[in-house]
Amino acid sequence: MSLLEKTIDGIAPQDQASRDKAKERLDALTMPHWALGKLMDLALDLAGMTRSVKPKFSGRAVVTMAGDHGVVSEGISKYPQEVTPQMVYNFVNGGAGINAMARNSGASVYVVDMGVASPLDELVKGSKIIDKRVASGTANIAKGPAMSREQAIKAVEGGIEVAMLLAPGVDIFGVGEMGIGNTTPSSAIVSVMTGLAPEEVTGRGTGIDDEQLKHKVGVIARAIDVNKPDANDGLDVLAKIGGFEIGGIAGLILGAASLRKPVIIDGFISTAGAMIAHALCPTVADYIISAHKSVEQGHVAMLKKLGKEPLLDLDFRLGEGTGAALAMHLVDASVRILTEVATFEEAAVSGASS
Amino acid sequence: MSLLEKTIDGIAPQDQASRDKAKERLDALTMPHWALGKLMDLALDLAGMTRSVKPKFSGRAVVTMAGDHGVVSEGISKYPQEVTPQMVYNFVNGGAGINAMARNSGASVYVVDMGVASPLDELVKGSKIIDKRVASGTANIAKGPAMSREQAIKAVEGGIEVAMLLAPGVDIFGVGEMGIGNTTPSSAIVSVMTGLAPEEVTGRGTGIDDEQLKHKVGVIARAIDVNKPDANDGLDVLAKIGGFEIGGIAGLILGAASLRKPVIIDGFISTAGAMIAHALCPTVADYIISAHKSVEQGHVAMLKKLGKEPLLDLDFRLGEGTGAALAMHLVDASVRILTEVATFEEAAVSGASS
Repeated sequence: MSLLEKTIDGIAPQDQASRDKAKERLDALTMPHWALGKLMDLALDLAGMTRSVKPKFSGRAVVTMAGDHGVVSEGISKYPQEVTPQMVYNFVNGGAGINAMARNSGASVYVVDMGVASPLDELVKGSKIIDKRVASGTANIAKGPAMSREQAIKAVEGGIEVAMLLAPGVDIFGVGEMGIGNTTPSSAIVSVMTGLAPEEVTGRGTGIDDEQLKHKVGVIARAIDVNKPDANDGLDVLAKIGGFEIGGIAGLILGAASLRKPVIIDGFISTAGAMIAHALCPTVADYIISAHKSVEQGHVAMLKKLGKEPLLDLDFRLGEGTGAALAMHLVDASVRILTEVATFEEAAVSGASS
Repeated sequence: MSLLEKTIDGIAPQDQASRDKAKERLDALTMPHWALGKLMDLALDLAGMTRSVKPKFSGRAVVTMAGDHGVVSEGISKYPQEVTPQMVYNFVNGGAGINAMARNSGASVYVVDMGVASPLDELVKGSKIIDKRVASGTANIAKGPAMSREQAIKAVEGGIEVAMLLAPGVDIFGVGEMGIGNTTPSSAIVSVMTGLAPEEVTGRGTGIDDEQLKHKVGVIARAIDVNKPDANDGLDVLAKIGGFEIGGIAGLILGAASLRKPVIIDGFISTAGAMIAHALCPTVADYIISAHKSVEQGHVAMLKKLGKEPLLDLDFRLGEGTGAALAMHLVDASVRILTEVATFEEAAVSGASS
């Protein structure tokens, strides 16, 4: 079996007995029933994922997958492609949004080169980034497939390898990305995976105007038309209209799920990666936490397909893993509700009349 | 001048120059413009409140105001009144939701007896709670005023005194409450202050059913009809249909604003307290941060009146200050965005084309 097949084979659903045990305790806490709403729902998930009613998430990593996209030659982004490696340097130097958000949650940031167009040898040599480079950027999806099927497998397995590499010190993963132009393949993936038209799922990315948006929708429609990806085959979708970092995200999610560790997905692009992982193995959804609602259209359609509700809604549209890092604090809060709040009996508080 | 008058007199608006300076930096950060949305809006407020583009919030307090309500004799709550002091003991022993949420944000919890029906002398003697008790519970608002105008002033000034007492070690306040039955006076306050009918602003509190809800709406309508509070006079509204802890919350907010320290309001009842403070001094809104959207109807109507958008929406309906404590982490994140993220120039990253 390949690494991908072995990983998928090792993914088991959440543990119902642990969920039940957590629910029993939460039902008895000194508060009106389920008065801390979504954080109590999350506590059930955390128990089910970890097989524990006292889950601990001391080791925490945000993995930021970087890659470039041939489709930028169609003029779909406001930023030049050189920004991808520039931002990788910014991550490594601790100056980006993700660094601030990760510090705020006590998480370490791991940057992975999944396929940045320009070389990053210096950073690889200095062990500043993880090297899982498949190629120097994808091909232009408006004219043909982004990558070969072999490259798609390599990207996903790269992500799995990152999960395995970090696993010994990590109890919870966050995942995000950097890649100029990557809302375009992501929108194409949403369209194919949800059956919604490109114009329904395409947003403004880093801030394009009406005319640029119309152009972007056209490019996405063309990419789907030219490549005809098979929605039932996650690797086909990834190869034809995806990106290397999107494959890496899918792999990281599969790896985390096989390790029974929660993985918090960030915004629009990370969720597109989750759609690929979900197509390869629907059970991964049991290990996914949705950090926040992106302002990108189409995000909610994907989350619905994954059966997820986002925790935060703060008009984030940055990516990098910023929302995922921020949401780690809500995971902490959820664990504290499960493990630190007293029950009516423990605290000798009178219950409600029925 | 009275303490209340002096405090109101000392409340100045946010500082526009500090907001402008913060905006200049945020506009230049290495990310698409305003890509961390609401946390960037919050950063402007924090700068304007503190007169600093490097605000620090190391000392943090959640103040939980407790009081009882004569209107419980109308049968508007599922829980017996004895739960109020029982929960105060639970707070002091660290076993309640607010203790878990405050620990999660590195905040200390201060419990204030504003007017619990049963004596709490033991806790006062042991310095476990702060004693600002106005009386042993309010009178039944369905039959007459909750308290005298003098008592209303005493409640608000009690809250101001708590803010002054804690101020030396506190950079940011959260405020919440405990008081069986207190969604009823809060709904009455919303109705009077927003002009919406009682049935439009009354929710299920700790979880009453349809028939109980109808009854509760009737009680609220009667309280307004019997007392005819003057919406333009915050003290009149508080005295006639309010509660001691609601007055304490109003006072704490006024005190925090006069100290130019942000105050995070929790859910429905805290926001009703904010409405009283706002009626006394509209400028307090400049120092208020709304933690979360309560599931109680009427909450959004109040926030609109205050010009606030809630940060979180997690189906919380507990009170105690839980949402306020949780939101402190978002304040931290906001400060980090303002102070830790590099600008395009600092990080040598290429900008967007226009």
